[in-house]
Amino acid sequence: MDTMIIGIAGGTGSGKTTLTEHLARRFGADISVVHHDNYYKRQDRPFAERCRQNYDHPDAFDTERMIEDLRALKAGKTIHCPVYDYSIHNRTDETVEIRPTKVVIVEGILIFQSPELRDLMDIKIFVETDADVRILRRALRDVEQRGRSLHSVVEQYLTTVKPMHEQFVEPTRKFADIIVLEGGRNLVALDLIMQRIAHHIAEA
Amino acid sequence: MDTMIIGIAGGTGSGKTTLTEHLARRFGADISVVHHDNYYKRQDRPFAERCRQNYDHPDAFDTERMIEDLRALKAGKTIHCPVYDYSIHNRTDETVEIRPTKVVIVEGILIFQSPELRDLMDIKIFVETDADVRILRRALRDVEQRGRSLHSVVEQYLTTVKPMHEQFVEPTRKFADIIVLEGGRNLVALDLIMQRIAHHIAEA
Repeated sequence: MDTMIIGIAGGTGSGKTTLTEHLARRFGADISVVHHDNYYKRQDRPFAERCRQNYDHPDAFDTERMIEDLRALKAGKTIHCPVYDYSIHNRTDETVEIRPTKVVIVEGILIFQSPELRDLMDIKIFVETDADVRILRRALRDVEQRGRSLHSVVEQYLTTVKPMHEQFVEPTRKFADIIVLEGGRNLVALDLIMQRIAHHIAEA
Repeated sequence: MDTMIIGIAGGTGSGKTTLTEHLARRFGADISVVHHDNYYKRQDRPFAERCRQNYDHPDAFDTERMIEDLRALKAGKTIHCPVYDYSIHNRTDETVEIRPTKVVIVEGILIFQSPELRDLMDIKIFVETDADVRILRRALRDVEQRGRSLHSVVEQYLTTVKPMHEQFVEPTRKFADIIVLEGGRNLVALDLIMQRIAHHIAEA
């Protein structure tokens, strides 16, 4: 089986998850999704310290393991993807079985940062959305769905999310093959990507 | 016949012509190309004044006529596209016959500026290249192929090309469905666009 790996990057709240979900829904069993977030490193230290971890820095991720897993999927092997639990700020003991599929989507803010990871990707998509729109989406999500205070969202955004975005995420935009404005809401871009995937699935 | 109109915009030297040529070569008789530059307005005034014309302002173009021509092509009619001669800085009396094709590419720095023109496009592509790379390409083209002095290129760039780019071209980037970095040299993006076109040609 010829596996096509598609990377979908972009800042927090850019719409990369929406785009990923659209593609996963459309192609069902032919697509699997690997989230970089699930590869946050295991942290053997107290909860209070884990809360202060900088989750937007490349060092927070076990990217080596993700690369190994993607190579395994490409080689036709089933992987056991780690699972990260946001409520305890740590990796759980669970894993999720992912079987090899014709198309694998890799999704995350920093997936274009590692050259080895980039080299595994056949198509690199960067979802671009204005920073003000992105933080508003993130604030709504964190306050409404994750029970956080607006104050803590603002604090985290200004102290780590924004500086890390500017230092690490934004500079990887130049590695993209295409840039999609407004992710899953951009139907023309979605159509273009879907047709490419459908063609690959038909041929692979 | 179902005509698909693809707009390819981007600043001077961005690589939009290279991208357009790649597509035109690949699909031959199924594609026609309409250049906004050919719709520069006729100028009934002395040569010296025509040289001082601001060619990077939306008002320099007869966009109305281009819209009419594209509507005609979409309706299955043959058009007679005006021809602009850069050496005399004016529209010539010649026209070029363009027959209706399944795919029409519209190319130019300012084609996303007019809402009516944008509405005619099925796919809007913006080719993005760093400004320093763009001006170097333009300088090479103007000096080596158009016999201009480097001094005059720099003068024109700083007094009109750059300010017009920032005022009119760059703000239309947000209307694009996808942004392609480095135009015709980006093989993954080219492949994505070609597959979309091939699919349309097969279906139309």
